[in-house]
Amino acid sequence: MNEREELPAIDELRTLLGGRLTTSLPIREAHGRDESWHPVAPPDAVAFATSTKEVSEIVRICAQHRFPVIAFGTGTSLEGHISAPHGGLSLDLSRMNRILEVNAADLDVHLEAGVTRKALNAWLRDMGLFFPIDPGADASLGGMAATRASGTNAVRYGTMRENVLNLTAVMADGSIVHTAHRARKSAAGYDLTRLLVGSEGTLGIITELTLKLYGIPEAIASGVVSFPNFEGAIDAVIETIQTGLPVARIEFLDEVQVEACNRYSKLSLPVAPLLLVEFHGSEASVAEQAERFGFIAGEHGGGAFEWAVKAEERTKLWEARHNSLYAALALQPGKKGLISDVCVPISRLAEAISGTKEDLKSSPLVAPIVGHVGDGNFHLIMLVDPENAAEVAEAQRIHDRMVMRALSLDGTCTGEHGIGEGKRKFLAAEHGEGVAVMHTIKQALDPLNILNPGKMLPA
Amino acid sequence: MNEREELPAIDELRTLLGGRLTTSLPIREAHGRDESWHPVAPPDAVAFATSTKEVSEIVRICAQHRFPVIAFGTGTSLEGHISAPHGGLSLDLSRMNRILEVNAADLDVHLEAGVTRKALNAWLRDMGLFFPIDPGADASLGGMAATRASGTNAVRYGTMRENVLNLTAVMADGSIVHTAHRARKSAAGYDLTRLLVGSEGTLGIITELTLKLYGIPEAIASGVVSFPNFEGAIDAVIETIQTGLPVARIEFLDEVQVEACNRYSKLSLPVAPLLLVEFHGSEASVAEQAERFGFIAGEHGGGAFEWAVKAEERTKLWEARHNSLYAALALQPGKKGLISDVCVPISRLAEAISGTKEDLKSSPLVAPIVGHVGDGNFHLIMLVDPENAAEVAEAQRIHDRMVMRALSLDGTCTGEHGIGEGKRKFLAAEHGEGVAVMHTIKQALDPLNILNPGKMLPA
Ligand SMILES: Cc1cc2nc3c(=O)[nH]c(=O)nc-3n(C[C@H](O)[C@H](O)[C@H](O)COP(=O)(O)OP(=O)(O)OC[C@H]3O[C@@H](n4cnc5c(N)ncnc54)[C@H](O)[C@@H]3O)c2cc1C
Ligand SMILES: Cc1cc2nc3c(=O)[nH]c(=O)nc-3n(C[C@H](O)[C@H](O)[C@H](O)COP(=O)(O)OP(=O)(O)OC[C@H]3O[C@@H](n4cnc5c(N)ncnc54)[C@H](O)[C@@H]3O)c2cc1C
Repeated sequence: MNEREELPAIDELRTLLGGRLTTSLPIREAHGRDESWHPVAPPDAVAFATSTKEVSEIVRICAQHRFPVIAFGTGTSLEGHISAPHGGLSLDLSRMNRILEVNAADLDVHLEAGVTRKALNAWLRDMGLFFPIDPGADASLGGMAATRASGTNAVRYGTMRENVLNLTAVMADGSIVHTAHRARKSAAGYDLTRLLVGSEGTLGIITELTLKLYGIPEAIASGVVSFPNFEGAIDAVIETIQTGLPVARIEFLDEVQVEACNRYSKLSLPVAPLLLVEFHGSEASVAEQAERFGFIAGEHGGGAFEWAVKAEERTKLWEARHNSLYAALALQPGKKGLISDVCVPISRLAEAISGTKEDLKSSPLVAPIVGHVGDGNFHLIMLVDPENAAEVAEAQRIHDRMVMRALSLDGTCTGEHGIGEGKRKFLAAEHGEGVAVMHTIKQALDPLNILNPGKMLPA
Repeated sequence: MNEREELPAIDELRTLLGGRLTTSLPIREAHGRDESWHPVAPPDAVAFATSTKEVSEIVRICAQHRFPVIAFGTGTSLEGHISAPHGGLSLDLSRMNRILEVNAADLDVHLEAGVTRKALNAWLRDMGLFFPIDPGADASLGGMAATRASGTNAVRYGTMRENVLNLTAVMADGSIVHTAHRARKSAAGYDLTRLLVGSEGTLGIITELTLKLYGIPEAIASGVVSFPNFEGAIDAVIETIQTGLPVARIEFLDEVQVEACNRYSKLSLPVAPLLLVEFHGSEASVAEQAERFGFIAGEHGGGAFEWAVKAEERTKLWEARHNSLYAALALQPGKKGLISDVCVPISRLAEAISGTKEDLKSSPLVAPIVGHVGDGNFHLIMLVDPENAAEVAEAQRIHDRMVMRALSLDGTCTGEHGIGEGKRKFLAAEHGEGVAVMHTIKQALDPLNILNPGKMLPA
């Protein structure tokens, strides 16, 4: 898209938005930067929207001028999602950050897409409610829906797929759609909610969401247990899930990651593969679950099972977990993290991880493994210098092998980070003929290809 | 579609299928009959498919001849779903009834679409596993996915929306799509699984499914409690859900339905509004849940809380619940049941039910109410003589008011039975602009409109 074609769109947008439309280089660059290792192209302009109606007007103008629109939440995605390879507008929703209505009686909340998960939970705390989905970053709820995000609690509470009741979305023609009402279930029509969840800004701009909430559990207990080898840890996870123990969180950190966390978060965990678990329930049921888990861990070589039921210690451990990416990056300052996120059926988890461990043995890369293993989901963080072609190539080799191995184990190329630009090539390997169906849907709902073009679907 | 145009399609199908293609009147009529009060048009022919590949060939032939294809599971749907208003082929999947693979370790099963829920659970029982979704009828898993079915366990285990991992589907052009792999979660591409779940045979023919399974709980406890009025029963439900008690089933029967069940299933329940509940968990947790529920019920005027933990008694009670439609029909032999199914946010449930109770007070109709009330979902069964125009009109008046009331309470026009022919007029009232998006999707994926034409989407 050359300069001459862009200008009228920007002019018209400026008339609509005034100072909330900017072409300032630093702001464009800030919207052309994400948390990934991918080189990201900045947009031509950035708009800060304040209402659904305004988003609709913005999209109409962009459609008229065939000007790409890239929704922007907080820019914490990891696969080059927010890049503007074809130029266009970064549509920043962070100022749409109002919590519109909490229905405590129905355990739901209606809010604008720019509200972040931490802001939401801070707001809810006094009501005894919480929203469980917690990607490591303080992402926007709109961005989380758009990427079908999950996090540490997904094993118990599900992902964004299960926790969105209704979306308000602006479609590519500017029309405003409400995907559902507030009922917990419905058999009325195509599931537009789930079609938009995970569509990465390519089918519509999410402006408002109604989300499920949960009562803060009466009792919460967290614990850590170390294992002599990763196989023991993973076998303990598998048995925990198979026996239906309703664990709320069960996270794996390999010894490389544990050491990184010790340094970064000033902990003194034994440097060995580790599981960090949490149970939610009544006092009695939490105690029962903990006892059962302790037994399972012990059977698989787990060491002393340390409980940290005090809120303070619990918070410290989970903060360290959420900062694990930054802890990993701090191992080799200056490098970027090439992150691979895959998910496999739980029975194949040990195989998936050991394949990658095997690959790493003969590699010079430093690469911790962490995972929401209760879902069969884990991440590899390979530290690379983006300027060092050999290093990048080696990381990509290991990455590709990890993804293809996950697919061969009946898993997915991404459990939660999404496709963006980085994983487009794997979509066909995973979905085969399904990709044609996805193309047909995209073509039908966004015939001008203005919504986040160049993302998700292979060219 | 006139006879001359149909013949070549039928000829070609016969060449492909031999004796598994029939135009016999009794068989066509059996496939033009469902469990609803709707007059249903029989198809021109019935095919019994035996493999995904064959379904693909059938659909290709039908596409070539613009011959409608109506998938048929067990024909237990309630909104005229399987009717053939434009003629065409009833594609019966009941012979695709193989259970292909149980992955006990991953708690999933891969099977053909014609397997029924009872056949599946009979197969699983010895493995200590079960599949929880249980519409009253012994429906096919393909039909259940296609209608986004739920049932008594949905409050704890979710609906078909949450319990399908992967579908194999034949699209309108005959292409075969696998919507996902076996991983528990994925952020890879559009959610084709959820797009097909609930699409009522209008976007693709489901030939195989991978479903989530659950371990049969260590302990199960069922109980019944009667209330002096329905308000008390509903308030007890609301408090149970709001306090996060993980009830597995919580069913409401009003006094009219209780009396019907007493007669039909030879029970001697007090003729008063009643809740039938079930808890799943460990021995200790089930006891704890039961105690808490007993307390809540008591607070809302509930009578003595009778526990029937013995498997035999439990089965008897739940069979009576599953037979409630037939029990209702037996109240006035010869009449049909006009069933209205709505779902509202739980806080609006009492309002939704009392509005209908109010309407019924001044009506001559006999009409029991039953409901999966833990989800805010309930059904009204109005007994009508389809030949009696005044009676049908009165039933439709009450039905329309019940649906529009549910919508005004932020609910849905159908919690689980779906749209079919019967509820098309409500889809626009519920979804507004969303219906245009649904039309666009239908048009893109089935441009010849051969898959179950005349259903779900308003004309
Ligand atoms: C340290 C760290 C840890 C992480 N841990 C996890 C984790 O555990 N689990 C996990 O799932 N992810 C994780 N992530 C990834 C990231 O946080 C998630 O992908 C998150 O959902 C992105 O939200 P965002 O608001 O930052 O979206 P952005 O990065 O701004 O956008 C992401 C994509 O969604 C689109 N989008 C954004 N907002 C909207 C909208 N309103 N409407 C339509 N499209 C929109 C964008 O166009 C883009 O394609 C982590 C990231 C970091 C940096
Ligand atoms: C007594 C009774 C109680 C009931 N209770 C409940 C309940 O509690 N909860 C509930 O949800 N429903 C309930 N129902 C309704 C019914 O059982 C469900 O809708 C069920 O899911 C229908 O399954 P089926 O196999 O009979 O589908 P069918 O009636 O054969 O078909 C239903 C629809 O799905 C389509 N379809 C069928 N198979 C496929 C396939 N393989 N691929 C694509 N499309 C397909 C058909 O074209 C049709 O549009 C009840 C019905 C009765 C008679």
